[in-house]
Amino acid sequence: MLPFARLTVVGLGLIGSSVARAVRANMPAVRITGFDADPEVRARADALAICDDITDTVGAAVIDADLVILCVPVGAMGAVAEEFVADLPAGAVVSDVGSCKQSVVEALAAVLPNATIIPAHPVAGTEKSGPDAGFATLFKGRWCILTPAEDAPEAAVEALRTFWQRLGAEVEIMDARHHDMVLAVTSHLPHLIAYTIVGTADDLQGVTQSEVIKYSAGGFRDFTRIAASDPVMWRDVFLSNKDAVLEMLQRFSEDLSALQRAIRYDKGDELEALFTRTRDIRRSIVEQGQDDDAPDFGRKH
Amino acid sequence: MLPFARLTVVGLGLIGSSVARAVRANMPAVRITGFDADPEVRARADALAICDDITDTVGAAVIDADLVILCVPVGAMGAVAEEFVADLPAGAVVSDVGSCKQSVVEALAAVLPNATIIPAHPVAGTEKSGPDAGFATLFKGRWCILTPAEDAPEAAVEALRTFWQRLGAEVEIMDARHHDMVLAVTSHLPHLIAYTIVGTADDLQGVTQSEVIKYSAGGFRDFTRIAASDPVMWRDVFLSNKDAVLEMLQRFSEDLSALQRAIRYDKGDELEALFTRTRDIRRSIVEQGQDDDAPDFGRKH
Repeated sequence: MLPFARLTVVGLGLIGSSVARAVRANMPAVRITGFDADPEVRARADALAICDDITDTVGAAVIDADLVILCVPVGAMGAVAEEFVADLPAGAVVSDVGSCKQSVVEALAAVLPNATIIPAHPVAGTEKSGPDAGFATLFKGRWCILTPAEDAPEAAVEALRTFWQRLGAEVEIMDARHHDMVLAVTSHLPHLIAYTIVGTADDLQGVTQSEVIKYSAGGFRDFTRIAASDPVMWRDVFLSNKDAVLEMLQRFSEDLSALQRAIRYDKGDELEALFTRTRDIRRSIVEQGQDDDAPDFGRKH
Repeated sequence: MLPFARLTVVGLGLIGSSVARAVRANMPAVRITGFDADPEVRARADALAICDDITDTVGAAVIDADLVILCVPVGAMGAVAEEFVADLPAGAVVSDVGSCKQSVVEALAAVLPNATIIPAHPVAGTEKSGPDAGFATLFKGRWCILTPAEDAPEAAVEALRTFWQRLGAEVEIMDARHHDMVLAVTSHLPHLIAYTIVGTADDLQGVTQSEVIKYSAGGFRDFTRIAASDPVMWRDVFLSNKDAVLEMLQRFSEDLSALQRAIRYDKGDELEALFTRTRDIRRSIVEQGQDDDAPDFGRKH
């Protein structure tokens, strides 16, 4: 049984185009309609033939959907919903793929008070952007977190769970606020730190940019990958999940100060104790299949 | 022409065992003698047959060497040199692979006042440790930085340059203090930040460790790789390159505070401007062959 028969994907970047490709690969009977606010992205998605139809307005895209997935920056969710609210079928489920959930819940509920909204967040992606960057197996073995309201219809939640499972994801249900705190640690703070350190290196006097690039294999290059992620998407994440991000940032800063102090006062034992503890976390991530065990991420040597 | 005929590798972990393997692969006529302070590592290196000889004392290891490469934590360089100073042949070149250079230069010069010391730092590695982790192609296409003193014999510098080139590395000559500043940015600060954020996540209340691991694909897992690097090696790096590390840490903290403020006061334009700039650095690193262009480091999806 297909959980949904007529899918509309709004936003055809890395994630949206991957959703369309994964549905095509795993549920070929589903009719996929796509829309993107950028005419060039629409043309490219059309050329790539990743949807059955590409429409010129978001209203036309949703008009016969039973599932609408919003794959736009989290700060744009409310505005795009306003554009299609008049055309949304009564029975359609509205979902999204945003990296923070509480602000999306609030924005969508305000604009679509009568719709069935089941927010979702597939914890998957790469540093690349745009319709060419997507691929059908992006969600395979990754977690997708659903954050339905307490009174959300059970059938819709289960249908969306099945949908993501069919794309290869493992599904977890979570409270939206708890999601935002967990992801602030596992995703938002790492991105913020990566953006910062790459900026710091770029600004340095005394060290040329060419030196930073040449010797980046010493560790720096790892950070440049996530610091190459979509700027607008991440701007919106930090502004939309402000409280949790600032809270995590505060804790991180305190820990960094403690480490700074340990270095200044030659407290080698403290450093070694921390560095030994962090090794175990890596081991758990690899054991639980959330990263490859290949040295250096399996980079070619 | 072989630059050196009899190599001694002191310390048979990831880097030392990779040096031995790379020499075997690229200059098979070179006789390789190995030593490690840990009897278990010696036994393992013997079983792996990565050296022609493994000796039980470091003195016996260096006794007929024309090149001695110290592959031990930077804090151990002086002590190990003291152990072999009486056995070191007069004509031997002493080098190392330490991640910071000024402190190594000082430690070795104090113990070996009459030796030809040409410090080196191959900017290469993985997060794995020990003799099993090494491989012959680790240095291929990577930079190796030599930091000879101004009065170092030109012939020895050129021989060491040839040696590293034969292992596949590109060689750069640099002042030791400048090296320490450059590497503080491209290697030491990234490791310090990675260790810190992994520790912060491990300490969190309200978010369980299993959640941190489950949702690590959102970005966090990238940091856990370098935070799984050898604890003793990195403890020594931070203590030995204290001034440059603290200086870079200070700049990073200021930049992080600025970003924190931009989030708090909804300065989306500032965030987007930084996030756009950092993308270019990634592009340069890929263009210059210092990282793969494969999305997500080429991880399997």
